[in-house]
Amino acid sequence: MEIAIINGPNLNLLGKREPGVYGSESFESYLEQLRAMFPQVDIQYFQSNVEGELINYLHTVGFTAHGIIINPGGYTHTSVALGDAIAAIKAPVVEVHISNTAAREAFRHISHVSAKCKGTIIGLGLKGYELALRSLLD
Amino acid sequence: MEIAIINGPNLNLLGKREPGVYGSESFESYLEQLRAMFPQVDIQYFQSNVEGELINYLHTVGFTAHGIIINPGGYTHTSVALGDAIAAIKAPVVEVHISNTAAREAFRHISHVSAKCKGTIIGLGLKGYELALRSLLD
Amino acid sequence: MEIAIINGPNLNLLGKREPGVYGSESFESYLEQLRAMFPQVDIQYFQSNVEGELINYLHTVGFTAHGIIINPGGYTHTSVALGDAIAAIKAPVVEVHISNTAAREAFRHISHVSAKCKGTIIGLGLKGYELALRSLLD
Amino acid sequence: MEIAIINGPNLNLLGKREPGVYGSESFESYLEQLRAMFPQVDIQYFQSNVEGELINYLHTVGFTAHGIIINPGGYTHTSVALGDAIAAIKAPVVEVHISNTAAREAFRHISHVSAKCKGTIIGLGLKGYELALRSLLD
Amino acid sequence: MEIAIINGPNLNLLGKREPGVYGSESFESYLEQLRAMFPQVDIQYFQSNVEGELINYLHTVGFTAHGIIINPGGYTHTSVALGDAIAAIKAPVVEVHISNTAAREAFRHISHVSAKCKGTIIGLGLKGYELALRSLLD
Amino acid sequence: MEIAIINGPNLNLLGKREPGVYGSESFESYLEQLRAMFPQVDIQYFQSNVEGELINYLHTVGFTAHGIIINPGGYTHTSVALGDAIAAIKAPVVEVHISNTAAREAFRHISHVSAKCKGTIIGLGLKGYELALRSLLD
Amino acid sequence: MEIAIINGPNLNLLGKREPGVYGSESFESYLEQLRAMFPQVDIQYFQSNVEGELINYLHTVGFTAHGIIINPGGYTHTSVALGDAIAAIKAPVVEVHISNTAAREAFRHISHVSAKCKGTIIGLGLKGYELALRSLLD
Amino acid sequence: MEIAIINGPNLNLLGKREPGVYGSESFESYLEQLRAMFPQVDIQYFQSNVEGELINYLHTVGFTAHGIIINPGGYTHTSVALGDAIAAIKAPVVEVHISNTAAREAFRHISHVSAKCKGTIIGLGLKGYELALRSLLD
Amino acid sequence: MEIAIINGPNLNLLGKREPGVYGSESFESYLEQLRAMFPQVDIQYFQSNVEGELINYLHTVGFTAHGIIINPGGYTHTSVALGDAIAAIKAPVVEVHISNTAAREAFRHISHVSAKCKGTIIGLGLKGYELALRSLLD
Amino acid sequence: MEIAIINGPNLNLLGKREPGVYGSESFESYLEQLRAMFPQVDIQYFQSNVEGELINYLHTVGFTAHGIIINPGGYTHTSVALGDAIAAIKAPVVEVHISNTAAREAFRHISHVSAKCKGTIIGLGLKGYELALRSLLD
Amino acid sequence: MEIAIINGPNLNLLGKREPGVYGSESFESYLEQLRAMFPQVDIQYFQSNVEGELINYLHTVGFTAHGIIINPGGYTHTSVALGDAIAAIKAPVVEVHISNTAAREAFRHISHVSAKCKGTIIGLGLKGYELALRSLLD
Amino acid sequence: MEIAIINGPNLNLLGKREPGVYGSESFESYLEQLRAMFPQVDIQYFQSNVEGELINYLHTVGFTAHGIIINPGGYTHTSVALGDAIAAIKAPVVEVHISNTAAREAFRHISHVSAKCKGTIIGLGLKGYELALRSLLD
Repeated sequence: MEIAIINGPNLNLLGKREPGVYGSESFESYLEQLRAMFPQVDIQYFQSNVEGELINYLHTVGFTAHGIIINPGGYTHTSVALGDAIAAIKAPVVEVHISNTAAREAFRHISHVSAKCKGTIIGLGLKGYELALRSLLD
Repeated sequence: MEIAIINGPNLNLLGKREPGVYGSESFESYLEQLRAMFPQVDIQYFQSNVEGELINYLHTVGFTAHGIIINPGGYTHTSVALGDAIAAIKAPVVEVHISNTAAREAFRHISHVSAKCKGTIIGLGLKGYELALRSLLD
Repeated sequence: MEIAIINGPNLNLLGKREPGVYGSESFESYLEQLRAMFPQVDIQYFQSNVEGELINYLHTVGFTAHGIIINPGGYTHTSVALGDAIAAIKAPVVEVHISNTAAREAFRHISHVSAKCKGTIIGLGLKGYELALRSLLD
Repeated sequence: MEIAIINGPNLNLLGKREPGVYGSESFESYLEQLRAMFPQVDIQYFQSNVEGELINYLHTVGFTAHGIIINPGGYTHTSVALGDAIAAIKAPVVEVHISNTAAREAFRHISHVSAKCKGTIIGLGLKGYELALRSLLD
Repeated sequence: MEIAIINGPNLNLLGKREPGVYGSESFESYLEQLRAMFPQVDIQYFQSNVEGELINYLHTVGFTAHGIIINPGGYTHTSVALGDAIAAIKAPVVEVHISNTAAREAFRHISHVSAKCKGTIIGLGLKGYELALRSLLD
Repeated sequence: MEIAIINGPNLNLLGKREPGVYGSESFESYLEQLRAMFPQVDIQYFQSNVEGELINYLHTVGFTAHGIIINPGGYTHTSVALGDAIAAIKAPVVEVHISNTAAREAFRHISHVSAKCKGTIIGLGLKGYELALRSLLD
Repeated sequence: MEIAIINGPNLNLLGKREPGVYGSESFESYLEQLRAMFPQVDIQYFQSNVEGELINYLHTVGFTAHGIIINPGGYTHTSVALGDAIAAIKAPVVEVHISNTAAREAFRHISHVSAKCKGTIIGLGLKGYELALRSLLD
Repeated sequence: MEIAIINGPNLNLLGKREPGVYGSESFESYLEQLRAMFPQVDIQYFQSNVEGELINYLHTVGFTAHGIIINPGGYTHTSVALGDAIAAIKAPVVEVHISNTAAREAFRHISHVSAKCKGTIIGLGLKGYELALRSLLD
Repeated sequence: MEIAIINGPNLNLLGKREPGVYGSESFESYLEQLRAMFPQVDIQYFQSNVEGELINYLHTVGFTAHGIIINPGGYTHTSVALGDAIAAIKAPVVEVHISNTAAREAFRHISHVSAKCKGTIIGLGLKGYELALRSLLD
Repeated sequence: MEIAIINGPNLNLLGKREPGVYGSESFESYLEQLRAMFPQVDIQYFQSNVEGELINYLHTVGFTAHGIIINPGGYTHTSVALGDAIAAIKAPVVEVHISNTAAREAFRHISHVSAKCKGTIIGLGLKGYELALRSLLD
Repeated sequence: MEIAIINGPNLNLLGKREPGVYGSESFESYLEQLRAMFPQVDIQYFQSNVEGELINYLHTVGFTAHGIIINPGGYTHTSVALGDAIAAIKAPVVEVHISNTAAREAFRHISHVSAKCKGTIIGLGLKGYELALRSLLD
Repeated sequence: MEIAIINGPNLNLLGKREPGVYGSESFESYLEQLRAMFPQVDIQYFQSNVEGELINYLHTVGFTAHGIIINPGGYTHTSVALGDAIAAIKAPVVEVHISNTAAREAFRHISHVSAKCKGTIIGLGLKGYELALRSLLD
């Protein structure tokens, strides 16, 4: 079973960037634990700061993977194109946000992506990726 | 370990109400499976259609439970008082919505509750309650 | 044939409350006339100031009555949960307002209930209940 | 007793236009039934697609008829001039909409006419005209 | 010298319509006084309740008259087409409102016509037409 | 002389709830001081988290008490029904807020209650109740 | 094959009105060229400044023509009734604007007509009518 | 008969300031013509750039003058206090704007003053003061 | 103990201005009563219609007085500078409004001052100053 | 003669993506037909999901091509930078949308690109590219 | 060469007022440094808390100074009259804000002044005045 | 000392693009002058039209450079991700705009970047980069 995890802009700085908001663990180290926890799942990982590369990757995995987990970072609130890409592909997509965007700036309360996803997990830290994966395994 | 699950208005009709949107399983039957899955957790359950009774119950369990899972139903979008109650108590609260509210009417895109919760799980069906519980177990 | 009439907050004060806006007849006295006018109809009546009790009652009669007439009073403009309850049940619901809400404060021009009802009668006084009943008899 | 019924734009197509929304009976055939039902009432009928002709007719009958029933169609949501005409005349006016405008596009939720009318009946089909007439007979 | 005065919807009822707002003199009687006051001016007068006829008349006089005075009534607030007609013609146009629209409903605070006119006179009663005429004589 | 004090949702937690915002004294202990300060006044006290019970109590005391002091808590910002109840009764009502709502979240800047009250006291802590009482004694 | 072209308010002034915005060719002269270019098509032409007459004409040709090209001029931005008429008829309708409305006043960015049409051509001058016709020939 | 003319901020620069918008005549020179034109009227004149001094002067003349003409300049769009001052005095006030504010920036379309005045004259140049004076002479 | 009372624009007209809204007592006469009531307090009084003079006075007393009571009149709704002045000084400031601004025009529901004050008292007449003073004595 | 066609995000999936909305033909196959139809035109084609690459390409062809046809996909509604690029170059640009964006989600009704283009063709399917090309050939 | 620096409301308190936001240096001490740094420039300085006096001073220096630096403080966000004064004079004006207004309250994100200035420098502390001066020296 | 200058979309066309708005000097030529003016500073330069590449570069230099100057061009108004990148890095960032964005289209008045920067310099031409650099040297 193949699941792709896609991280958007600035998530490459995880562990290094505003640790008060995003925690101090890097995503790579978390990813190892996740793979250890789900040995039966082939977890693909992709990160880019370029909106269009996220779309390209969604197109690449979107017709073959069994499910996709995406944290679109700042593009969540501004990218119609990313929402369109999710609507265009076949694989179910679950959206994850590490911090509680509802408790942050007003512009983070708008999403162009959520309506096109199967569901969304917000504010539960890196644990959110694990939970998203569990929801896709069902 | 004690976890309280609180369901708001119209969720007593689950299984019976708009099955296309909410599925056809009753919450009681799902609750049994959940208790079986987590035998080590003492899962309390409360449902009410009365906003103030939800607040009363939050006050009752909010200083002793290890965590609370709430699906505030229609009150999500209109109840400042419920958000205040969550902010007033000690236990961490995770909000769950069965359907993908982001893909429904515009008035369901506003929440007075999410900013006061630890996190939110949307659109992953009844599975959302299990995932919320897992996030509280950490 | 069973028809339920449900009155929301402050309608228990009818006849006593702002008579310039709502008239000086109590609802109970009007109800008697209505029952006399439609002897073939079993007219149930319920009033509550508690939003959740209105929802409870809708659940109780909503799967057995042939039709429901509701005047949700001030909850009309604020209650998503009441709108959800109406959408959740089987019986057709007709909404009635005694005064012409369109000619009053701007916050009364918004309704969370009307879109879920079969139809709405506004501004025709207590006569509106009779007309709603006639529309349900068809 | 004289009652005028005024239908606005596109209502001449009734029975022919979007039958899923407006039903398949023509207004003329319904009018015959209405006249048969109320033989004691002299029911005048006027239809026009021209906003200003609706205003002209309101001026003509507005100082002599005992009551007016108007379905302003699409002008409901855009015509200040029609609302002004209703405010300018003496006869009480009841507004009727065949479909439930509250459950349709957002621009149909705004009315420039309702605040100037005695009351409004929405979503109860052609039956709404009969009910409006009954409310004017009182 | 030729000046055209154009009155929009419901202004034919002047003197008869809401005298508290619009006064009790008919426009015809006022027009006589105006003509007596300015014998050197050829004052043309046109009134219609039909938006498009107002446009037609603007087209007719708009390339020959020395100036136009228009009271577009309720179309002021809703008619882009009327504003376009004023922009399309050669004669300078002065807009007049009898009542103080700024002290009335919020929808009367918006104008699609004023920006295309030379100027606007509001709230000075029928006298406003005389003042508008004087401003065009200069 | 009879004055009723009514506290809305979450105010039962006073002293326990967010002491940084609301202080650490319970309302019961404050009430004792207030009664000692005004021995000539019969101070009734009612608290509920249920919107409709607040309305019920307003109906009960609203035609007999000499004045009412209400802190509607979170319902201030969302309850048309509570505002309607205040408008429906005879006794003058003074609204009190312990914290300075103007310095908090934007949704706390809207009130459906203030316009129906005699006046409002905001941000002066528990002292606000004493001041409200003094204003009613006049 | 029958195609109807309908021009709305002020388009009778084409060539004469604001040539900087709309060009200096009259529509009649352009129509001749168009008919010459498509001899196999029976091109009907109708222009009116009256909103309701545009609706009348849409009703007349809307059930028999193979396609309709409409430039609703200023009614584009304000006429729900025109949009309803287009939705009510059978023939596919293509909307044309000569100038680039997106580069003009903000009120020209709203359309009540476009959503009911098959498509829209904006800003390509009189050529837009030819292109609309080509799209209907397919 | 005493009439006061009040000019607000930047109007002291008239003739010198943006002549394309405001013309090249100084107000003082215009005032002389005005006084010559109306020898029977005692025309007082006051200009200040200070909002509060405009209010002071309104208080001074507002209970004795027969009428006031005010051009509040930029304070038109922002000053509630000036609107309050006009409402507080006895003399009727006519508002004048030299340029057509409706054809300028959007923030100039809002007025806090107009609703408190008898009427408003916009866009007719310095002539507007003469017309305002004529309207007060009636 | 020194307390400064500051009144903003138009409050010098108290007793004379719109007595239906503001009462018929002058502030000077009320001030005498207040001083008699609190002989132990040195009550300074300042009134100005000039926004900047109110700021000047706040700067003068703001670092020495024990408390300040301000009724900013119309500047409440428009003055960021006044709010900044209150935030800049040391003394606690209580805002007072004589009339119930919540029951008046919508532009009076916005305040640039309240968030910077300790608290606000609205709608309790001149009594509000006494209550504000009491809250500062604590 | 050189014409460049530029397709934005997700248009590489044409024929594969939501065929109900976008049809089932791939753009490549359509492009062949187009080239066959216009042998005299050198049609360049570029597609990218990366906003900045679309800008790069516009810079490359924007000073040499005779015209450009762009379908900016989801970037239409969010990209100021793309609009700036179109304004920065010399070649005239025609915007094309395959589906009728006016009949889809509200966020698709806003465009940051249209005002900078010569014109726009919406909702006419792939045919829109041919029509855009024809408009550029003139 | 003459440059005028104008400081608006509350800037006289610099060094004393909210040092966390505005720093602890007084403007007078900074001005001395600035004059020492630019001995060749005749730096005039004016501060007032009165909006109209700022306008007066702009009029005084605006036709003779080589450039003006203005920090309009709280009037930035509310004063159309100040913006008009800047537009009315000849000297180029550069606006300076000491703190980063973009990172503060939403009402500080609106400016009525910036569009009329040559440019704006925000958030660079007192250094902003030096930079503004350098930009004017060019 | 190392300072990085980052230019966003379309700024590669400087000197070539809308010279009326942006001037006719290329950035490369300006950069040479800047380096000559500050020989002690190691000025890095990067330009890209790709939003994500700007973020990548910010990550690269953001933890080592002493300061960053960014002109995000059109991404200023739409990019949450760019604002997040600035918040995520260590180096202070000064934002520069060549033209006065406050005097251009309304969508240029919104910035997602400014609140995360130390400060902003707008409308002072290429000189703005020099001033930004000076502010970082302090």
